Amino acid sequence: MFGRGSTDDKGPVLGWLNVLEAHHALRIELPVNLRFCFEGLEEDGSQGLDDLIVTETSKGPQGWFHGVDCVCISDNYWLNTRTPCLTYGLRGIAYYQIIVSGPGSDLHSGMGGAVYEPMTTLISLMGKLVSVEGRILIPGVYDGISVADSSELQKYQDLDYSVADLEKVAGGPISLSDDKATVLMGRTREPSLSLHGIEGAYSGAGGKTVIPATVSGKFSLRLVPPQTPDDITKKVVSFIEDEFAKLKTKLKMKVEFVGGGKPWVADTNHWSYEAAKRATETVWGKTPNYTREGGSIPVTLTFADNLGVNVLLLPMGRADDGAHSTNEKLDISNFLNGTKLLGTYLYEVANINSDK
Amino acid sequence: MFGRGSTDDKGPVLGWLNVLEAHHALRIELPVNLRFCFEGLEEDGSQGLDDLIVTETSKGPQGWFHGVDCVCISDNYWLNTRTPCLTYGLRGIAYYQIIVSGPGSDLHSGMGGAVYEPMTTLISLMGKLVSVEGRILIPGVYDGISVADSSELQKYQDLDYSVADLEKVAGGPISLSDDKATVLMGRTREPSLSLHGIEGAYSGAGGKTVIPATVSGKFSLRLVPPQTPDDITKKVVSFIEDEFAKLKTKLKMKVEFVGGGKPWVADTNHWSYEAAKRATETVWGKTPNYTREGGSIPVTLTFADNLGVNVLLLPMGRADDGAHSTNEKLDISNFLNGTKLLGTYLYEVANINSDK
Repeated sequence: MFGRGSTDDKGPVLGWLNVLEAHHALRIELPVNLRFCFEGLEEDGSQGLDDLIVTETSKGPQGWFHGVDCVCISDNYWLNTRTPCLTYGLRGIAYYQIIVSGPGSDLHSGMGGAVYEPMTTLISLMGKLVSVEGRILIPGVYDGISVADSSELQKYQDLDYSVADLEKVAGGPISLSDDKATVLMGRTREPSLSLHGIEGAYSGAGGKTVIPATVSGKFSLRLVPPQTPDDITKKVVSFIEDEFAKLKTKLKMKVEFVGGGKPWVADTNHWSYEAAKRATETVWGKTPNYTREGGSIPVTLTFADNLGVNVLLLPMGRADDGAHSTNEKLDISNFLNGTKLLGTYLYEVANINSDK
Repeated sequence: MFGRGSTDDKGPVLGWLNVLEAHHALRIELPVNLRFCFEGLEEDGSQGLDDLIVTETSKGPQGWFHGVDCVCISDNYWLNTRTPCLTYGLRGIAYYQIIVSGPGSDLHSGMGGAVYEPMTTLISLMGKLVSVEGRILIPGVYDGISVADSSELQKYQDLDYSVADLEKVAGGPISLSDDKATVLMGRTREPSLSLHGIEGAYSGAGGKTVIPATVSGKFSLRLVPPQTPDDITKKVVSFIEDEFAKLKTKLKMKVEFVGGGKPWVADTNHWSYEAAKRATETVWGKTPNYTREGGSIPVTLTFADNLGVNVLLLPMGRADDGAHSTNEKLDISNFLNGTKLLGTYLYEVANINSDK
């Protein structure tokens, strides 16, 4: 089924509605109490959703989410095209720009050799942030991040996933490692730093002999626990200011925090994950991959922090669905089994809790 | 007199026409024979002008430029706002882009930490080209460039020019040196390397969490004798390819030569320069600055190479005219005295040659 939003996120929303519709048509009682929160603005920054959650929580017993025992969100994808997954972690993000200025306006490069040029200093600073192998060079950035022990490493090795899967998604043989656990951990349980571009410099085709007057280099870090945007910002700003001072130019420089969000990791031993695992095995006949995602879904953390309950990401679609892209699709088998999975999950939640 | 093109280059063209008109009105014979070449497309790359010069030269005695003994071009400016100048040198240029690719399409930075990112490699390569103090780091680039001897250094010291003049034009206190000779030589008799920008990366305001798939870093060198674009291109390509190989990424890289032109320096002992000096002293009451420019006027070299004669750049406007900018202007005193200067120059050319 092709169409913008088919997998992200109309398909999963319909899946939940299908479950309700089936129970209503068959006049069967739902196995658990449900509170729905449908969100239509997630791709536009979820305007107002965080406020809604905070407000409803603050209402106490009158709030919409009062009494909720766990949260289940369907807004992600399998790691590959074969194996269902449960997602228990998302990286956070901290986005910055380094602004270097000096000339009163853009200069002709005939002035080159007479003045300090903002681009040269900016490129020098951006080049100190991360190695070509992806190692972040800002001191203290890795502080407190746990090293995966052998049992965690084994979990990554056991995932039904290969470096070829990654390179298919990337569109080229550009994996940082040939070891799948290393690659997966690099993408999901380690922080990363990407250089996105430069505002104010020449960005067109061909050539222009300009010395740009003010340039803003954009970069962001993806964060993992215990990193927070606040903590990382201190380290980023301090490092760049020190490096800029060492350059001893006559230019001006400032580092700005553009925005960010904390990382999130859930306890997979919680009954909600166990229910989702059993439901997956029933519907798909496979034990799910337990995955962390490299990206961010900020509302996940808002639910976890405000409701104080376990959050599970239970996806419907596959890695090759092409969310946000042309020809976005959702396979019919994923839609049908995904609907069954969501329904079965509710029964497993009821079963597990009645066992207690 | 304010208006686009007032100083670059309508004013100087009118100056020459004024000289002709005055002689015609007064029915006075011109002191020398003249061939005019008026150019209206210089700001659009002088389409066809090089071809015209080559074609006319190849016609021999029937060619328009046959018998021309020297060339005088009025398309530049004083070094400051006080002192007329004769310009005897222009830097050449060699423009390049470094193209780094790998992913099949732009990736979400949630993939960060798993793949080699073109931007990281490009920024690393661009950071190896030039120091923040403007020293070009490409081996062999300075080969063969003469060191200024004490008499040449003295010429720069004697110029009516200050670091404050430069910083006024630059719009900020960003001079690479506090010594005016060092600054002027850096801008005109030394090569320079400027980083212009990046095509394909994010260049907008705010933030975008993209890992760009293919990025092209633009930079150019300003050249001085004996540098040529051909020679410099070999050194640039070889250096960047070596540095890229050292990075050992899985990405692809190529260096492209976008375009260029050779530097030009004229013999200031030629009688055309002597005539221009005498005319300047007569009209302005000042000995002119002898200057080299940091930029390029490619047709200068085309005239010098094809006609095989001395070329002089004899300007009308000032450093603060704001050529190519809003509120471009030409001072009335520069227009009137500039017209007199061009006329007087013709008489001095005749005098000097009749002395011989």
